[in-house]
Amino acid sequence: MSSTEGQVIRCKAAVSWEAGKPLVIEEVEVAPPQKMEVRVKILFTSLCHTDVYFWEAKGQTPLFPRIFGHEAGGIVESVGEGVTDLKPGDHVLPVFTGECKECRHCKSSESNMCDLLRINTERGAMIEDGKTRFSKDGKPIHHFLGTSTFSEYTVVHVGCLAKINPSAPLDIVCVLSCGISTGLGATLNVAKPTKGSTVAIFGLGAVGLAAAEGARISGATRIIGVDLNPSRFNEAKKFGVTEFVNPKNYDKPVQEVIAEMTDGGVDRSIECTGNVNAMISAFECVHDGWGVAVLVGVPNKDDAFKTHPVNLLNERTLKGTFFGNYKPRSDIPNVVEKYMNKILGMAGAGAGSHSRR
Amino acid sequence: MSSTEGQVIRCKAAVSWEAGKPLVIEEVEVAPPQKMEVRVKILFTSLCHTDVYFWEAKGQTPLFPRIFGHEAGGIVESVGEGVTDLKPGDHVLPVFTGECKECRHCKSSESNMCDLLRINTERGAMIEDGKTRFSKDGKPIHHFLGTSTFSEYTVVHVGCLAKINPSAPLDIVCVLSCGISTGLGATLNVAKPTKGSTVAIFGLGAVGLAAAEGARISGATRIIGVDLNPSRFNEAKKFGVTEFVNPKNYDKPVQEVIAEMTDGGVDRSIECTGNVNAMISAFECVHDGWGVAVLVGVPNKDDAFKTHPVNLLNERTLKGTFFGNYKPRSDIPNVVEKYMNKILGMAGAGAGSHSRR
Repeated sequence: MSSTEGQVIRCKAAVSWEAGKPLVIEEVEVAPPQKMEVRVKILFTSLCHTDVYFWEAKGQTPLFPRIFGHEAGGIVESVGEGVTDLKPGDHVLPVFTGECKECRHCKSSESNMCDLLRINTERGAMIEDGKTRFSKDGKPIHHFLGTSTFSEYTVVHVGCLAKINPSAPLDIVCVLSCGISTGLGATLNVAKPTKGSTVAIFGLGAVGLAAAEGARISGATRIIGVDLNPSRFNEAKKFGVTEFVNPKNYDKPVQEVIAEMTDGGVDRSIECTGNVNAMISAFECVHDGWGVAVLVGVPNKDDAFKTHPVNLLNERTLKGTFFGNYKPRSDIPNVVEKYMNKILGMAGAGAGSHSRR
Repeated sequence: MSSTEGQVIRCKAAVSWEAGKPLVIEEVEVAPPQKMEVRVKILFTSLCHTDVYFWEAKGQTPLFPRIFGHEAGGIVESVGEGVTDLKPGDHVLPVFTGECKECRHCKSSESNMCDLLRINTERGAMIEDGKTRFSKDGKPIHHFLGTSTFSEYTVVHVGCLAKINPSAPLDIVCVLSCGISTGLGATLNVAKPTKGSTVAIFGLGAVGLAAAEGARISGATRIIGVDLNPSRFNEAKKFGVTEFVNPKNYDKPVQEVIAEMTDGGVDRSIECTGNVNAMISAFECVHDGWGVAVLVGVPNKDDAFKTHPVNLLNERTLKGTFFGNYKPRSDIPNVVEKYMNKILGMAGAGAGSHSRR
């Protein structure tokens, strides 16, 4: 039993007091975990673009003060009533979406969109009682994505915590709690390229590189990286990308360029930019008869995906994924094992794609 | 050996001399089959809307005189050089798309869109020599869809003939060479509903009814028929439809009506109208997390399928099918067996949905 169990913990957190204003390192109070909640000591956290987007609070209901952060690794400090899966000392990754294991989605082998714990960017408090566990001088501070990892201690619903191998290096595997798993799962769980197949990856940021790595793990022979920034190709090679296409270098739509390179289209494509035109290109560049396009990137709220229905009738498949279709509690521990067993390289993840605390 | 083998056959055919003008029953000459071709005595043929569409020749390059017809059943009269799969006397269904068994598509388990014999509405002659096998008084008459079944004898590429059980009643199973297989396969091969699932069928014409029958065969519990014509419901019940929704009866989009009826959406939907708005509704009415929508109907050439990408990112799948993803030579004989084994009812097919010669 930790000496802090059942007590309010005072610790440091990066608090966002107002939209777009610099985060302030404050001493905050973190209340003990309630029913089905867990208090976690955060050791490492990354900064994801989603944190920035909600910090800017453009186009959403602003919810401040708030503690951002959702890509992290830590150790359980104490658990609330009803928590049996986790105990103090367990190594965990908090995840912005959850798995209650009871709802129709959790019971479906095809979905990870838990009814209870599905991502909710507008919720600033805990589900149990609608209250926050953070405060400063008695003033409540909102949560973010149920994780709020920009704090030395945070409180998370047990359904949003993946218990991982304690020998995994938390400074590296912490990135598996968001983008890397999203890209990897998009390929391994949704696109499912077969050995020897051809895959196009749109967008070579962290998510796209993880998607490329998924293609390499699957045994794809040609992995075509598509990006407007040619400086990304060298890094991309480390993740398995074998060819590079910069749409700016062509007068015709990139889907036509790719179709010509690949005798009619790629077997699979994965869109990781969130740009709706890239989504359309990613769909239209897959081969008729068997091609599958997977959308990963988050679009703007007024975007419309538009294509001629014949592109579908020609036996192409279009699907999207959320968090790479991984169920956080059931599947993420195994993704960590992939890294431990050197199946997944995450080249460079430890070196630069996240910030250590 | 038939007495007509190697000879020109003179027989009756319904010839379309001009776009939109009545077909004329003429005595025509049917040349012997060439390399990889088969001459078939047609016993039964149906009229499909596609025949009418190309007879009207609106919006396409007109190709006349022509012999229409592509949904039929017959018996092999003679075979050309290289044909080893079929012999005179075999019972066959001519199919408007083919299976060469050699191309990438035929070798893929996922596709039936044969590179060599894929549907081609603009081709009016045989692939072997670019010539027609039909003529009247020396004047060539064009073929249609490689089948031209509105003739007592026709010549078809061997790859477009499914050899079927000779005890199957050709007057009934002839409809399996087009619409019925298209609808049935859309459900059984593409949507693949599981036992106990909920399926929506958009459009309750012949194709939609076959799609509904596929859902019933799959063990779907709720089969929701969507049609603007309420008189279709009674007939639809025979094919497995359990509930009926007429979009005209509601002020809100039918996808919302269906989502409310089904606690968030159906597990599978199959669109059989070709109306692009119905396609969008069919997609948007499937449940997030696991829903699959299959497009079957043929759209207009200027249509655009349009949806918000979040509908995809919420883990819905959208795909289209062509001829129900059946490979004609490999799979259609088994569909005929389904009818023979009373798995497939085709309620009413023998009674009214086609014309006997």
